[in-house]
Amino acid sequence: MRAITGVTRLYGIVADPIHQVKAPQGLNAILDERGIDGVLVPFHVSAADLATFFAALRVLRSFHGMIVTVPHKTAALPLCDAVSERAAQIGAVNVVRREPDGQLLGDMFDGLGFIAGLREAGLDPKGMRAYLVGAGGAGNAVAFALVEAGVAHLTVANRTRDRAEDLQRRLLKAHPGISVEIGSANPRGHGLVVNTTSLGMRETDPLPLDLGGLEPWMIVAESIMQPETTALLAGAAAAGCHVHRGWPMLASQLVLMADFLGMQRE
Amino acid sequence: MRAITGVTRLYGIVADPIHQVKAPQGLNAILDERGIDGVLVPFHVSAADLATFFAALRVLRSFHGMIVTVPHKTAALPLCDAVSERAAQIGAVNVVRREPDGQLLGDMFDGLGFIAGLREAGLDPKGMRAYLVGAGGAGNAVAFALVEAGVAHLTVANRTRDRAEDLQRRLLKAHPGISVEIGSANPRGHGLVVNTTSLGMRETDPLPLDLGGLEPWMIVAESIMQPETTALLAGAAAAGCHVHRGWPMLASQLVLMADFLGMQRE
Repeated sequence: MRAITGVTRLYGIVADPIHQVKAPQGLNAILDERGIDGVLVPFHVSAADLATFFAALRVLRSFHGMIVTVPHKTAALPLCDAVSERAAQIGAVNVVRREPDGQLLGDMFDGLGFIAGLREAGLDPKGMRAYLVGAGGAGNAVAFALVEAGVAHLTVANRTRDRAEDLQRRLLKAHPGISVEIGSANPRGHGLVVNTTSLGMRETDPLPLDLGGLEPWMIVAESIMQPETTALLAGAAAAGCHVHRGWPMLASQLVLMADFLGMQRE
Repeated sequence: MRAITGVTRLYGIVADPIHQVKAPQGLNAILDERGIDGVLVPFHVSAADLATFFAALRVLRSFHGMIVTVPHKTAALPLCDAVSERAAQIGAVNVVRREPDGQLLGDMFDGLGFIAGLREAGLDPKGMRAYLVGAGGAGNAVAFALVEAGVAHLTVANRTRDRAEDLQRRLLKAHPGISVEIGSANPRGHGLVVNTTSLGMRETDPLPLDLGGLEPWMIVAESIMQPETTALLAGAAAAGCHVHRGWPMLASQLVLMADFLGMQRE
């Protein structure tokens, strides 16, 4: 990494908790590789403080943008001055750019990143019956992306049923006639099972879904990167499923994020 | 520099303009040398936005503290939750630490740094007639430090005379009986001449004082670090004066700042 000076551009990742984030390593490597005088640092901010923090980003002139992750993806959307059509449809952002006039622009690459990560691993969701747990920012993004990637059916499960129903409504509005239903904690009968909740980050977390529903022919995909093997993935491997870790979802969108954040080769 | 991760501590320097600051290089070198997982980055914030920015620092839990420099040193003091007795007396802070509960604590090391820098260059202000231009944050700190270092007399000059008079009043209150007067832009008759204004940072700036008053027996000291040779120092050298650059004032307080900011060896 090059030395930081008074003209170094500031980038960040906002999250809570923060210790597990992997984007600093990934994006600082891209900054290095592209020869850009910038640095990406961790911003640890609680949900209740997000609006206060966003107000400061508008006036922080050396700040160029940041990644937004758990639990802020949905709450960050209305704090932006403008968002992409994709982010508006999903109802969440995972990246925010600061324009020279202080305006904050949001976009959402989680869905594209998840699908690209699956495909790079040789897994194509097209025609599959998919089960998704979690209807937060990442869950919404992955749901829209799965539908756009051509899954035959999508089941959405969420602790708060209202949010799953709201996601179902918006999916049907954008894609009339698709097969989408609300599910239980049991993923039985689905070839692709995806966790987009944060359950599994902490050792004390309950499982995000019922492992009893897993069978050896299923693919179980995670969006959590740290720990690399969550309790869900360990249980899925024990059940003979094919496991797909969380890292590819981020890795596949790092270049999209870098480009959106203005990290163009100099 | 070590790789930045989710647990890297965030430090900053807040200034406007920002391009000329040298603290990132100095303090990141100390972080490296002490083996601390932290990084210091530039925060470019305008004077009008400082309070908005401070509100966010309280809620930014990965933030551990920052250097405060031109033009924010005086304005930052009332934005802190508590300040040192020294900072309160001077009426300015140049370093702010964030406590784990979000409280922001201020201190001021410019005076100590300036005197230490002079002494390391073999120059002792004790017994000298000193002329100081500028009654901002750095000016106040250097004025108190010169008096405490035992100058025989201090003349204070400032574009806004009120601020010089206010500094004079506070100096006399803290140190009754000292010789301190308000001066003009002409430093004649003083063995030590010190610029603490920001005039000289930009090429288009007017001179901070009247070069016609300089004579070869004088020492002319700068607090501006970039450019290394300001128009004042160039004029002083041409007049045969001994010149003392701005860098030692910061260099001599970097360790004090690092210790205050909690950058203890791990």
